[in-house]
Parts: sequence; structure tokens; C-alpha cells
Amino acid sequence: MIYCDYAATSPISELALDVYQEVARDYFGNASSLHDTGGKAKDILESSRSMIAKLLNTEARQIVFTSGGTESNLLAVDTLLRASRLQGKKHVITTEVEHSSLYYYMKELASQPDIEVTFLTVNQSGQISLSDLEKSIQPNTCLVSIQHVNSETGVIQPIKEIGELLQDRNIAFHSDMVQSFGKINIEHLIPFVDSISISSHKVFGPKGVGAIYFSKNLALTSHPVSTNHEYGIRPGTINVPGIAAFSAAATETVADLAKNQTHLQYLRNLFIQKLKCDSIPLQPIVTANQCPSIVGCVSDFVQGDYVMLEYNRHGIAISTGSACSIGASEVPKSIQPFITNLEEGKRFVRFSFSHQTTEKNIQEIVKVSNAIFKRIKEERRGYDEKVNW
Amino acid sequence: MIYCDYAATSPISELALDVYQEVARDYFGNASSLHDTGGKAKDILESSRSMIAKLLNTEARQIVFTSGGTESNLLAVDTLLRASRLQGKKHVITTEVEHSSLYYYMKELASQPDIEVTFLTVNQSGQISLSDLEKSIQPNTCLVSIQHVNSETGVIQPIKEIGELLQDRNIAFHSDMVQSFGKINIEHLIPFVDSISISSHKVFGPKGVGAIYFSKNLALTSHPVSTNHEYGIRPGTINVPGIAAFSAAATETVADLAKNQTHLQYLRNLFIQKLKCDSIPLQPIVTANQCPSIVGCVSDFVQGDYVMLEYNRHGIAISTGSACSIGASEVPKSIQPFITNLEEGKRFVRFSFSHQTTEKNIQEIVKVSNAIFKRIKEERRGYDEKVNW
Repeated sequence: MIYCDYAATSPISELALDVYQEVARDYFGNASSLHDTGGKAKDILESSRSMIAKLLNTEARQIVFTSGGTESNLLAVDTLLRASRLQGKKHVITTEVEHSSLYYYMKELASQPDIEVTFLTVNQSGQISLSDLEKSIQPNTCLVSIQHVNSETGVIQPIKEIGELLQDRNIAFHSDMVQSFGKINIEHLIPFVDSISISSHKVFGPKGVGAIYFSKNLALTSHPVSTNHEYGIRPGTINVPGIAAFSAAATETVADLAKNQTHLQYLRNLFIQKLKCDSIPLQPIVTANQCPSIVGCVSDFVQGDYVMLEYNRHGIAISTGSACSIGASEVPKSIQPFITNLEEGKRFVRFSFSHQTTEKNIQEIVKVSNAIFKRIKEERRGYDEKVNW
Repeated sequence: MIYCDYAATSPISELALDVYQEVARDYFGNASSLHDTGGKAKDILESSRSMIAKLLNTEARQIVFTSGGTESNLLAVDTLLRASRLQGKKHVITTEVEHSSLYYYMKELASQPDIEVTFLTVNQSGQISLSDLEKSIQPNTCLVSIQHVNSETGVIQPIKEIGELLQDRNIAFHSDMVQSFGKINIEHLIPFVDSISISSHKVFGPKGVGAIYFSKNLALTSHPVSTNHEYGIRPGTINVPGIAAFSAAATETVADLAKNQTHLQYLRNLFIQKLKCDSIPLQPIVTANQCPSIVGCVSDFVQGDYVMLEYNRHGIAISTGSACSIGASEVPKSIQPFITNLEEGKRFVRFSFSHQTTEKNIQEIVKVSNAIFKRIKEERRGYDEKVNW
């Protein structure tokens, strides 16, 4: 199987698996227990926290571990909102292209009587407009939540510029960086946000682990479920082996970021070029600011599900969008700027690559693409002839 | 180190670690992805679900996986409340002795204007009174949440009788079974509850994994964060390797339950008897219905923290209570029936054993106890003499 669905999840690295095994076996204590078995687990936890903090050029105290990207997003936004609601504010700004976990959370918030939520649309490049954002700010705006990289199109939002716009307005700014962490540099954006969410299993770490960065400028209020874990922000026994493996995987991934980015950019360009040269009826979504690991495509005909299953039959794993939205019949808002009608949206498929993807893989994918669409075209021709007969 | 804090967490079993490793390496797909890599992960997920369901003598469809016991408790109660609030009901009954995760969640609920929460106290045996429960039921009572086994005292609540009392009243009944699952039989109680929460790391599985059983009689409403994972009840990428390892560990633990229970009962009796015979100034909390893995004790003098640290210095890991409440200065409500004043409550320590604990361990603990308290007594004598001099 040529796996091209790294945006959905990545395999755990051997290093991360070794770390997991060692910590689970030798440091199994509850990190909140005060005896030595607990203390040893706590030491591993705190060195893992320092490792993640270092990758973000911040201090360990600013990192809270969670059970994954979704929990990170919800807990970060919830924590920021709790702080700002104390000040009586109640307007939130987000986008229509957030990951489903945040989008539906925001929809739920919007249904509450004391909160108003503005959903920004994206322009023809898939980005939000800074002037739209500025115009939507109200005196009672307390939170802006805008993703960094979109999981369907790879479009990068202007996080620095958004942060600059918000900085002097006492509005908290959260950014979902689950798709960008480990793929493109995010460290330089940290001074411009109040919180970010990241996930372990997208960067070759174990599933079931994530983290939040909270700015030290924030005065966070504790979780309603009073807890001694994770600075009072996240209740529940801490998954120290998972966290240690996450920090090992993340450190490994980020260390090779520049090299991997060049590799991914090369593969992306090669793939897009080959699609064009071979006249494969898959139109890649190409715009000015995109994460090189993601190539979203719209097929000229036949639905995305069918295309995905054909690739799968040929041993290539691709997706029709976010794994978290599979089964949802709606066309993702993120691809709407790149299509002319919703019918086209149903013909969307996503290839997502990693440093493990090789040039040979791309050649094989192109070969398979030629075979798949040749057959589809022939079937269509046969069908059209029958219909026209 | 003789580890006697299994109520806080247990080491992962070698089988569970092997399963974790195999699944993380070979079945790494996102269980919601539709390609074969996802499909294989989904197969592992579903067979794990069947394994957990089998242990509870129920169907796979009734099991929802989570990130641990705390999330299981909160998500179960939240899901049950969402269903019943649609019916306009708004009174909840719980106890003062719930695990901190549920207790503080209930305190938070109680602060909301549209919900009333009754906190039942426990009697001299540490159990709730069924007649108190019955008296506290109101026409608008929608949910009762009562733990099975208390983590500090090991006291077992009469779950079957509570369930029978509630059965024909259209009141949902949740029970936190994190401390009892894998220690005593819970399978026979399943017909009397609407949901239970269990945790992996208490039964020699990995940390960061838990599950909820929901009765098939319930009409559950989806999570507000619309999700295709876990029947729409729990959003977030599913931790398949962790879940597979959990189900392996749980199956292993439950298979030996009867044998382990006999072993634990023997160790418990031996320990309590030795404490008495050697006149060790630790008074065990002994009552009619207790889980044999937990021996809560009140020392005749010196604070629990000090006792715990002394044992730690001698290579024995014990606790001053739930690891989730460490740092909280309050005396747990669960031990209050067994003490005459709050000062005594501060002298509480907990020993918690498992099938890994041996008779030799108990003898060593008794030996160390004698040494610790001999020294403490001598110091006190010296101090008293100085004071009286």
C-alpha cells in the first residue's frame, strides 16, 4: 500500500514506539502520586513538556497536554472563553473552514443565548480577508479562532498578520495548528497567538495525545472539574508514556522540517506537473500559500468516493477529505472557492504526503492514475455510445 | 520498590504492551478513513469493542471508547443529561463520595440555574442509604450518578438495589466503576445501570484509554461537536493501538478475577491481622462491603503525608488518597464516617494491592511499618519528655 493520507494520520516512528515501550514499562507511576514511582513519571512528563516547549521556542510552563488535537482545540477555546466571559464579553470570530471539531463547537456556541459567533468566509485563494476580520470586530469580541493550515486544501492562513491586527485589542487569538505542526515552521508565529493546538499522531507520534500552547500573557482560570493535573486545566490521569513518545516523535520530525519541506515541495511540484503532462483529469488546487504536504484535487468527472476506492483497489490510500468528516454529505467550505458548483465539490479527493513518500511513489501514483482514468474514460465512452445509440 | 498504589495506576502488562506495539506499527490507519489502511484499523477497533462488551456481557454497540476514566465519567453523565434535558427534567442525585472528576462536575452543574443537584451523604458503613435516595427523588429527577467502589476506602455501594429502585421511574443511572472493573465482578450489575465508566490503566492497560457502557434502552443524542467517530458520541481520532491494548489487558485481568479476588482477600486479611498483632498504630477501615484491593488506614498519630513519605523512604509506594485529589487540603468525605474528627482524617493513608502483590510483600510492609512507627514513637517520646521536662 502506498499511503498518501498523512493528513489523516501518520504511522508511529520506531523511536516513538521505543520511548513508549520504555516509559510504559519503567515509569508507569501516576505522575500526580507523591512517592518515587510517581515522581519518576512526573520527571519524564516535565522533560517531555520542555521538549515540546523548545520546539515552539517557549517555556515548559506554557504547554498543557491533552488526549489529541480535537480535545486541544475544544479545551483551548473553552479555557480562553472562560477567562474572557468573566469580563462580560461575548462575541467570537472564527472561519467557515475550521476543522469539524472546532466548526461544530462554534456552531454549538452560536446557539447559546449569551454568545454571538461570526463565521468568516474565505476568498478566491482560500484565505480569510484581513479587512473582513477587522470589520467584524465588535467592542465585545473576546476570541478569534482561525486555523493555520486547512486539512483539505493545505491553504495557509495569515496568522502573523491576524495576530498583529488583534494584538492591541485585548482579544484572545487561538489557532488550530494540527495540520501545520511538523510540516511547516510555526515557531515564529507563537508571539502572535494566545494559544495553539497540536496533535501527536500527525507527526509520527502515538494516537491519543495532543498539546495546547497557552501564552504566558493569559490569566487562565481553572477547569470547572477541579483538578491537580496539568496546572488545573485538564482533568484525568496523565498519559506519560504517550506524552514522552509524542515529544520524541515531534522533536525528530521538527528537526528535519527544512529538509522535509524541500522534499515535499519537490514531490508536490512533480505530482502536479505529471498530472498536467499526462492529461490526467484531476485538477489540483493550487494557490499562493499552501502547505506542501497536501494536494487537494477535483476530478473532471466521477465522484470522489469512487476515485478514492479505485486508488485503494490499486494499493494507494487517499482520502475524500478530513477523516473526521467522512460520512458528512456536505461539500467542505474550504474547497468551495476552487470549484464552480457543488457538484464539482463531490468530485474532491486529497493526496497527502510526508517525508516517507518517495519520488518512486509519485511515479507509481501517476501510473495508477493513468490506468484508473483510462478505464473510467473507456467506460464513460461505452456508456455515452449506448445512450446516444 | 514495593508498589502498593494500584488504585492510582497499574503498570502495563507485557501482553498489552505487545498488542500496543503490533497495532501501532501494523494497523496505524485512521479508523474513520475509508481505504484499506483505515479499514484494517477499524477491524481492530471493532474486535476490541467486542472484547470489552463480552467482559460486560453486553453487545459491542453499547461500548464507546474515550481517553480515560475521567472523560468516561464526564461524557457519560453529559450524554445522559443531554437526553433527559430534552424532556425538561432538571434534578440530579449523586453522592458526596464520588471521585473528584464527577464530584466537581456535579458541583459545577449545581451552580447552573436550570439544574438542581442533591448530594447524598454516606452512613457509618460508608454506604448511601436507599431510603435517603428514595426520599430525594423528585418528579423532575432525571439522573442518578453513584460510584461502585470508593477509591479511598474500598466501600462498595449497593448498585443492584439502587438500580432496582430507579428502574421503573424513568431516571437514568450512571455508575463510576473505574475502581471496581477488573477487581470485583461487575457483569451482573450491568442490567441495573444505564451507563458505567471504566479505565484502562487501572487494569494493567495503557494510560489515556477508557470506555463507557451505555444501555441499549437509552436513546442517546449526539455530541454537540458533530462527529463520525464512536457513534457520534465522542469526537477525536480514535486511539486504536491504545484501545486494542486496553481490551487485551482487560480480558487478561477479568479472566483471572475470581483467583485474584481470593488472593487479594487473603492479603488484605493477613495485612489487617498483622497490623493488629504487631500493635502497629494504623487503624484499617474495615466494614461489611469492601473491595479487597484497597486498605485505607488512619494512623494513631502523625499526618498521612509524613507516613507516606516514610514508607517511600523504605521503598514502599503508598498514597494519602486519590492521586487526582493530591494537593486538595480537604479530608475526603468518604473517610469521614470512619473518623471522629477532621484531624484524624489528615492521618489517612491508603495501601492498594493487586494480583502482583505477594505474601512476602505484605510481610516486608509489616516489617517496615514496625520500623517506621518504632522510630516515630521514640521521637514522640523524646519530644514529650522534653516538653514535660
